[in-house]
Amino acid sequence: MAFEATILTLYPDMFPGPLGHSLSGRALEKGLWGLQTRQIRDYATDKHRSVDDTPAGGGAGMVLRADILARAIDDAATVEDPRPRILMSPRGRPLTQARAHELAEGPGAIIVCGRFEGVDQRVIDSRRLEEISIGDYILSGGEIGAITLLDAVVRLIPGVMGNMHSADTESFETGLLEHPQYTRPQEFEGMTIPEVLTSGNHKKIAEWQRQQAEELTQQRRPDLWDAYTRK
Amino acid sequence: MAFEATILTLYPDMFPGPLGHSLSGRALEKGLWGLQTRQIRDYATDKHRSVDDTPAGGGAGMVLRADILARAIDDAATVEDPRPRILMSPRGRPLTQARAHELAEGPGAIIVCGRFEGVDQRVIDSRRLEEISIGDYILSGGEIGAITLLDAVVRLIPGVMGNMHSADTESFETGLLEHPQYTRPQEFEGMTIPEVLTSGNHKKIAEWQRQQAEELTQQRRPDLWDAYTRK
Repeated sequence: MAFEATILTLYPDMFPGPLGHSLSGRALEKGLWGLQTRQIRDYATDKHRSVDDTPAGGGAGMVLRADILARAIDDAATVEDPRPRILMSPRGRPLTQARAHELAEGPGAIIVCGRFEGVDQRVIDSRRLEEISIGDYILSGGEIGAITLLDAVVRLIPGVMGNMHSADTESFETGLLEHPQYTRPQEFEGMTIPEVLTSGNHKKIAEWQRQQAEELTQQRRPDLWDAYTRK
Repeated sequence: MAFEATILTLYPDMFPGPLGHSLSGRALEKGLWGLQTRQIRDYATDKHRSVDDTPAGGGAGMVLRADILARAIDDAATVEDPRPRILMSPRGRPLTQARAHELAEGPGAIIVCGRFEGVDQRVIDSRRLEEISIGDYILSGGEIGAITLLDAVVRLIPGVMGNMHSADTESFETGLLEHPQYTRPQEFEGMTIPEVLTSGNHKKIAEWQRQQAEELTQQRRPDLWDAYTRK
């Protein structure tokens, strides 16, 4: 069975959004992955269809209710459903390329998109939601996080990229940022392509690219460089 | 003048996408920010409208040409245009909440969305593109990165959030991940809201929330905790 994503959201119209275009859009059309959305509001019980309430202990904003979200999750996935249950959240562990690979090899994902001030902790605990963050900044909700996560994952599903792209030299696959790229024209505004790249000497080219990747990583991402040199 | 975003992309139909909904969508309708796209392909010069070529030095994939992208950038922004020129790229410096605040206080941004194997380094250098990464994973292109960056920025533009939300206790604003949240019902599947939160003792509530935030940050994000304790 293909990779199946089920999104729980208050904004189902945001999907597939950008995932309906380009690489992931073509893969969606081909059935290499599937996407369905569930409207959390459909699981509300009052006539106003409210899904949130004020935070216990006071403070601004609203919190998604545990009981309503739990019902939505339970309806989207039986206990036997092997798919990981993910909550997009700035409190989560950062998404990595390694986690994207793992997810791409699995049966799919159930993704809960938080909104407002957050989600009642009891539904995170009882439904064992894996909190994933796409970066150290705050978004207006989990939907764009879910789209980002799915784009990173879908391109790694077998058959999606074909041979149009080499994944193994790109940033994060080697542990280094990728070396600079050049293409024709040979001269652009007086700047030429570095000579080594047009030398035809594959060993020298590889050495130069490696050195450039190492320098860039040291300069821009000392954290990645530390992790790389400790390996 | 309101915040103006100009996106250079091969997929203008991806915009506004999710940014047309919810908080950023309402702000867009109200004119609190503006969004325009430019099709990079419109700046191609051959009859096939090609924008890319094979990488110098060999290797898989294709590289966006410096000359064509430079023409697109120069047409989108005069030299006097004060807006930062951003290239969404996994090689960039990671987006932070601090950078999102800076951008939200500025006149807008010109955002170039890379595709394929990357962008010719000479256009990055000559047009002084600021490379920004939204996280340590690879996307199919810069478009979803641009949407993510804009969502993080737009909600911080004055007037967009109103007083519906308090920004100062959320993750990354304090340097800590946010404490757990709870709301009604008081009891959910046998689990109750922590007693302190319903005590009405504001000092104790603040202490508890602080302690929870510190513990969560230490456990999940030793990197953030290190930065926090060094401040």
